[in-house]
Amino acid sequence: MTDPGGQAPQRGASGLISSDRVEGTAVFDTSGNRLGSISTLMIDKVRGRVEYAVLSFGGFLGFGGSRFPLPWDQLRYDTGLGGYVVDVTEEQLAEAPSFKPDEAIDWSDERWGSEVRGYYGPSPYGSRDGL
Amino acid sequence: MTDPGGQAPQRGASGLISSDRVEGTAVFDTSGNRLGSISTLMIDKVRGRVEYAVLSFGGFLGFGGSRFPLPWDQLRYDTGLGGYVVDVTEEQLAEAPSFKPDEAIDWSDERWGSEVRGYYGPSPYGSRDGL
Repeated sequence: MTDPGGQAPQRGASGLISSDRVEGTAVFDTSGNRLGSISTLMIDKVRGRVEYAVLSFGGFLGFGGSRFPLPWDQLRYDTGLGGYVVDVTEEQLAEAPSFKPDEAIDWSDERWGSEVRGYYGPSPYGSRDGL
Repeated sequence: MTDPGGQAPQRGASGLISSDRVEGTAVFDTSGNRLGSISTLMIDKVRGRVEYAVLSFGGFLGFGGSRFPLPWDQLRYDTGLGGYVVDVTEEQLAEAPSFKPDEAIDWSDERWGSEVRGYYGPSPYGSRDGL
């Protein structure tokens, strides 16, 4: 499998990835433990920006089928692991904003976005807005 | 089906849509003729920006299984039609940049992006970068 998400942060790198290849990609913690996988991406319709990758942790950690929106800039692709790495501990996840698959989320409610971004804080990889 | 992509261009509208709901959504021309559907989205990995919606036109118009990357800002969601509208004629599509599903595309080749953006020109809905 080729690299679906190496995130070299230089200008003009212009690496593109298909959304249907991101969906289903594994997610690991920084120790290399597999946490789950990306179920879908939440996209700002007007700006065309990926706001969140929604993580599905299955039955792992007792989180059941919960979905965890993670700001896109919290994800780093690791070619060795073949998946994304997030700098999030189990303890952090237990308290993280989440929803159930059958739950109706009002994504236009700015409080939801503020809560998610506030919970995870600035990207450990720096802002990419200026790239 | 609720509106998966109404694109009200005001600041802070913050309308989000799930990538797996965009995939498969119908695409129409400005006369309301169904052209095909969106097969996937091409996302800039670093910036987290949707660069293209990849249109699949099936066997319609004799285009076989070709895929047509369209700049995201060329798409407008029409609640009445229940799909995206693109201001593209059949004649334009016949000449548009495309690829086959089994074709290996070097998406890091900036000439490809320049060709696609140059072909369709500026968004008819204005720049959304400043939103």
